[in-house]
Parts: sequence; C-alpha cells; structure tokens
Amino acid sequence: MKAIEWLNDRVRIIDQALLPLEEKYIELKDYLSVARAIKDMNVRGAPAIGVAAAFGIALGVKDNKTSDYSKFLVEFNKVADTMAATRPTAVNLFKTVDRMKKLAATIEDVPQLKKLLVDEAIKIHMEEIESTLKISRFGSELIKDGFAILTHCNAGPLATAGYGTALGIMIYAHEHGKKISVFADETRPRCQGAKLTVWELQQANVPVKLITDNMAGYLMHSGKVNCVIVGADRIARNGDTANKIGTYSVAVLAKENNIPFYVAAPTSTIDTSIATGDEIIIEERNAEEVTHINGVRIASEGTEVINPAFDVTPHRYITAIITEKGIIRKPYKEGFGI
Amino acid sequence: MKAIEWLNDRVRIIDQALLPLEEKYIELKDYLSVARAIKDMNVRGAPAIGVAAAFGIALGVKDNKTSDYSKFLVEFNKVADTMAATRPTAVNLFKTVDRMKKLAATIEDVPQLKKLLVDEAIKIHMEEIESTLKISRFGSELIKDGFAILTHCNAGPLATAGYGTALGIMIYAHEHGKKISVFADETRPRCQGAKLTVWELQQANVPVKLITDNMAGYLMHSGKVNCVIVGADRIARNGDTANKIGTYSVAVLAKENNIPFYVAAPTSTIDTSIATGDEIIIEERNAEEVTHINGVRIASEGTEVINPAFDVTPHRYITAIITEKGIIRKPYKEGFGI
Repeated sequence: MKAIEWLNDRVRIIDQALLPLEEKYIELKDYLSVARAIKDMNVRGAPAIGVAAAFGIALGVKDNKTSDYSKFLVEFNKVADTMAATRPTAVNLFKTVDRMKKLAATIEDVPQLKKLLVDEAIKIHMEEIESTLKISRFGSELIKDGFAILTHCNAGPLATAGYGTALGIMIYAHEHGKKISVFADETRPRCQGAKLTVWELQQANVPVKLITDNMAGYLMHSGKVNCVIVGADRIARNGDTANKIGTYSVAVLAKENNIPFYVAAPTSTIDTSIATGDEIIIEERNAEEVTHINGVRIASEGTEVINPAFDVTPHRYITAIITEKGIIRKPYKEGFGI
Repeated sequence: MKAIEWLNDRVRIIDQALLPLEEKYIELKDYLSVARAIKDMNVRGAPAIGVAAAFGIALGVKDNKTSDYSKFLVEFNKVADTMAATRPTAVNLFKTVDRMKKLAATIEDVPQLKKLLVDEAIKIHMEEIESTLKISRFGSELIKDGFAILTHCNAGPLATAGYGTALGIMIYAHEHGKKISVFADETRPRCQGAKLTVWELQQANVPVKLITDNMAGYLMHSGKVNCVIVGADRIARNGDTANKIGTYSVAVLAKENNIPFYVAAPTSTIDTSIATGDEIIIEERNAEEVTHINGVRIASEGTEVINPAFDVTPHRYITAIITEKGIIRKPYKEGFGI
C-alpha cells in the first residue's frame, strides 16, 4: 500500500475517506483534482498534505505550456496559491509551496525550471520518507518492552507519505521485537483512529484496541497506559503543538496521570515563523461531520455544532518532541536550534 | 412527552434508542419486557432505570396469581432479581429492588401486599419527579446570567423520569429568565448527548450546540465554558461518582482550567454501602457499540475494542453535588449526613 505516488503524468493516492471498508486508489490528473482531494480529505495528515501539494504543483508545472518565464510564473503562482488555500493548519503545506516558489524564482530558463520543479516535488517526498524512518528509530528508544501506548488520530504511513511518525515508532518497536500494544482513540468526528490507525496497525500485526475518545482518560487513570504518542500539524517555536482536535485533552489527562506525552513529527512541521500556538489558525469544518457519522444522521435536524478540526497543546504538557534530528526536550526553542 | 408512565396493566415508555429521529412509544406488558427494555437501553438513565424496575416489579406482582404468601414470595423474588440483574452500575436499580423486597417481607396478606407493592412503585416514580424539581431549583442558584454550561451524556427528563437533574437545572434557569447556553458532548459510543440531550434542550428552547467528546477540553481551554454539570449513576460515601464513560475526563479538564464541575443527582443515587468509587462495578458493553455507529460499521472486521459504559470521577474533582436536599460540598460524607 502506497499512500501517495508520483506517476510522472499523474498522482496516485489511496482514498483515505473510504478506508478501511474499501481500498480504492484514485488517479489525479491535474492540480485542481489534487487540491480537491486535499480539501475533501481523500489525502490527509500534515506530511502527506505537504507531499500532495508538491505533486499538485508538479502536475501544474507539466501542464504549463508557455515558454515565457514571466507568463510561466503567473500560471505557476496561481497553481501554488490554490494548493496553499486548501487547508489552513498543516504547516507542511505552506512550506512546500514556499519551497517550490523560491525555486521558481531562481531560474529563468523555463524548460530547465520545469524539470527542476518536478524533481523538487519528488525530493520533498523522499525527504519525508527518510524523516519518518529516522523518527521511528529515535522514538522507539523511548518504548520499553511491554508498553501499552495510546495514540490519537492517525500519524501512520497514510498520514506521512512515508513510514509514519507516531505509528512509525510503534511499528518499528514491534518489528524490533518489543512486545507492545496500542490503544487507538477513534477520533471523532471523522474517525481517523477507528478507520485508519486501527487498520494500519492491523496490517503491521501490532496488537491494537479501538476505544472512543472519551475512554482515554479512564484507561490512563486505571494505570493501563505507559505513554502517549501523537503526530502534529504545526509546531510553534516554543513547542506548542497543533494536532487533531482532542489532542489537548489527551495531553492534560496524561499529565494528570503522570504519563509521558510525546509528539512525533518531522522538523518540516515546525513553523519557525510563529512564537507560540496562539498564532495558529484553527480550521473550522462543516456541521455535517458532527451531526452525521459516515453519512448517517445522529442529531435532530437544525442542530447547531462547533467543529474545530484541531486544537493546540501548550508545550508544558509535552514530554518530548521526536524529530528526524533526534529527541528534543524542553526548552524546545533551544532544542530546535532556533 | 413522558419518558415513562404507569398505565396500571402495562408500562408505557418512549423508545430512547430511536430518538430523536423517531418518537415511538412502547407498551410493556410484563416484567420480562421491562427487563429487556432496560438491558437494551430503550429506557436508560439511573433514576429512570430505578423507576422502570419498580414498574417492572409491579407488573410482575399483578401477574402473580397465587394467594399463598410463601409461593407469592418465590415468584416475587424471581421478578425482583431479574430486574436487579439487568445492569450493574446504576444504584437506583438496586435500591428500588431492595425497597420493594423489604415491603414484601412485612405483610403476609397477599391481596393487600399486591396493592401496596403497586402503590410503592408509583410512589418511587413520584418521589423521583419531586426530587428532580428540587434539584433543578437548588442547582439553578449556581447558574449566573450568561453562563455557558457544558454537559456530558444525558441527565434530562428522559433519564430521570422527572424534570431532569443536570438538564433540569439548565431548563429551570432558562425558564426563570437566565440567558444560558449549553455545549452538549455527543457521548460516544451511544451518542446520548447528540441524540437525547440536544433534542431535550431544543424542546425546551434552551440554546445548545453539539460537540464531539474530544472538543470539550478545547472549549474549556479557550475560556468558553463557565461550568460543567453532569448526572450520576452511583455515588460512593466519599463523593466518588460513577457516571457515563468520559465524565472523568471532563472533570480533569475542568479542574485543569479552573472551571466548577457539578454533579446533579437525587440522594437515591448515593450508595451508602460503599466507601469509595473503587467498589463500583463498571459495566462492559458489547464491541459493536464502538465498531459501529447507528448500525453502520466504521472499523475493519475483527477489530478489538474496550467498551466500559461508565467511569468513576474521584471526589476531589467535584466542586459540589446538587441533590434534592440541597447543594453538598466537601467533605461529602458529612454533607450526606452519613
């Protein structure tokens, strides 16, 4: 299973919105289809969104028929800005767009630039894969034999376009002989935990039990959880971390029960432009995600909802941040080398 | 709308499992049907379960055709024990059964006893209605104009067979001119918040917004919640409170954010026979409640789950317990007068 793949004239993704009941691949032939797939969460997870955006731009570059540099740039920027506008929280998306834009500004030879931009997109993908491998190796040092690990949402191969961050650590530890087990929060409203995390861990033969989000505290309080590992969508300079809604609650419950709470993320997720999590924009998604589950209505017609897709966990709740450069502890600003 | 009603030769309940999409009443004609309705959660909520059990026993009493006292008692005890075995956590159930058993032990005149037992069941119902009215009045003293109140699961008219405990307070405050608003946790796995709490508050014209369980912490941390009020399934002598799974997490998050956390429950919910919450048996329900939502599968086949129906909130997280006798604060043992 490959979450996302570059096929030169198209991008192939597994439709994450249909998993685990259906394993369907979608081939995206132009940048607008890629933008739509990100918005609709057929592809999701901060690092995977970054890679998808790079590939979307690459498709746009290939379809850009002008040989005039300034005209090329106008079209290129339209594509890049469309990608940047798909979702507001994952920083990997904006970093990808910036990186491609910077490259586009350096070379005026259009045929050469087109080749370089496509190569850059592929390089972004490769770097993410490599990062997740390193994160998995570093993180597994924190996992002892017999550990029960709780995770929230999905930070596995699907979300990262590589080996996985939070799940990568668990899979790596399991593959290297540690007897671990996992509690997966279902992660309402879209149930990425129930649908994707459980499925990915089953594929890797890691013992996993599914729980509803409101059971995590009970398990921690009952002494059944040794550590928590989650992914991240954006990390501020001080270590404040935006991740899937509910992550903050898990972090508070972990602290209250003296359980280590780890964030696993490539340094591409660190947004050095913001000092604290207060500056992170939280995406508000549509009401139907809450009033319905898998298209089935659960609340009465006209029910009002709140539906923030993410929350911010203040750095004081985070025991360590596991990156491809190593395990970083407080104070995070110094640890990040910024 | 009446959650439960005694019609002399049958018990009429609204089917809580179908709400809010369908308002269907069920008429239960014998005690086994009542036992089944409790088990399957067509009737639910600790006080309502207590009332339903009383009515179930009353149906059994009416169907008990013997005039021999000792034979009557054998049949009576079978009925009472069947009721007691329906669910393990709500103490109101066991208190009802005990109360009916004690009465049955005092009078040997079978025709007179039968009449008294049926009267006692009706009295239990009336007492619960009266309690919820008093709780609502006492509790509303804690609610200031403009308050946003968060609640978990459902402790309204449906759950209490009366005016409601946690929701009774909100409805009473609203009806007495306080501008309040409510955040209702959906309360997975069975979504009583999304299905019942939202619906009951809409019926009462109280402004309510539905959230997923994992959003409660985010709202508290954002300063959007003034207090939390929940119901209870069993309260130990020291104030430790069993309530719907996820209540413990809400309590920890409230404490972390300096938000008052209130439990509203009739004193019939206090189990004076247990010193602490450690002695409370937590019901484990079937896996399908977690792997499916409204009958629709969300997790892959063969997914293992944990499904505790309740958790215990230690008394240190509880700001006050609102009963029909008044608002009780720490130390609870003294406050309960035991």
